Amino acid sequence: MPTLTLRTSRREEFLDLTPRVAALVAEAGGAGLCHVFVPHTTAGITINENADPSVVRDLLAALRRLVPADGDYTHAEGNSDAHLKASLMGFSASVPYQDGRLTLGTWQAIYFCEFDGPRSREVRVQLISAR
Amino acid sequence: MPTLTLRTSRREEFLDLTPRVAALVAEAGGAGLCHVFVPHTTAGITINENADPSVVRDLLAALRRLVPADGDYTHAEGNSDAHLKASLMGFSASVPYQDGRLTLGTWQAIYFCEFDGPRSREVRVQLISAR
Amino acid sequence: MPTLTLRTSRREEFLDLTPRVAALVAEAGGAGLCHVFVPHTTAGITINENADPSVVRDLLAALRRLVPADGDYTHAEGNSDAHLKASLMGFSASVPYQDGRLTLGTWQAIYFCEFDGPRSREVRVQLISAR
Repeated sequence: MPTLTLRTSRREEFLDLTPRVAALVAEAGGAGLCHVFVPHTTAGITINENADPSVVRDLLAALRRLVPADGDYTHAEGNSDAHLKASLMGFSASVPYQDGRLTLGTWQAIYFCEFDGPRSREVRVQLISAR
Repeated sequence: MPTLTLRTSRREEFLDLTPRVAALVAEAGGAGLCHVFVPHTTAGITINENADPSVVRDLLAALRRLVPADGDYTHAEGNSDAHLKASLMGFSASVPYQDGRLTLGTWQAIYFCEFDGPRSREVRVQLISAR
Repeated sequence: MPTLTLRTSRREEFLDLTPRVAALVAEAGGAGLCHVFVPHTTAGITINENADPSVVRDLLAALRRLVPADGDYTHAEGNSDAHLKASLMGFSASVPYQDGRLTLGTWQAIYFCEFDGPRSREVRVQLISAR
């Protein structure tokens, strides 16, 4: 199963994985379901707008308001907010593909969601072909 | 891959897609995983109660309290709240099926979640058959 | 399709399903996508840290702050908060497997998320083998 490696550069950051995932789908060809999985607990994955970078900034700022970093937490590592933000976004995104192309909407990108960086991270991409 | 088209009639609204998805599954028959995908960035998809419509009203009201429409956003289109609500609900729902029937729980329905309507929208339904 | 039954013992609780799901994957062997589905509307499923139990306590506490149990809801059963918490976590988790083993990250566990217990609950586990 192909694994993408990435390096985040801030505590919180969304990285667009679409070109790398699309390249794997193009290489495999055919039709099926592309499942992108994050094997971490303080980073997640979501889909959102690829055009205006202010959308991603607003998403991160709104998540910070929802889940403050300095809330009343018991976990000693000081990243409880990151664990919840990751669960809110989720740990996988599944996108159908056809003829070796992801069927994303025009404005959609697949974002890796870092909530406790900077770190080295991994993402697993599994293609389940349709019959 | 079958595509459902729908027309929402309010800014925020949950539309029950279950009958249309179930019809596609019945037509295909057999067993597998039904993957329902929303190719938008200001609408999502979730599963929730089909019996009492007050549940869906409460979900929408609680999401509005969590993510105010008039927050301190930088995205100029004025729909940043819709982008976050969509990411919180997610862009796909996956439901197993057997003998041509979705294995939803008794009280479950699959809801299209409009957060920036009214609009014309699409939903893609992909069936991955099990072996 | 294998169905796990479980009994929750509190109103809100995360139960680690990983050993039971891993056993089903080991029995089947091979590679594919393991789809774990919750057929309820006041319980969900997520992935998060398996090492320090304070992470799960913090997740539950932070969700309670986000979605108060005694908010201004119209649904008469008094569990509207549970419906929204379930939609925020989601109703399925999908994890790739290889050689009969889930490819979870080192710190990841699959958690059943009870938000309106104690109750008897079910979880469906579907394995879609890869070709």
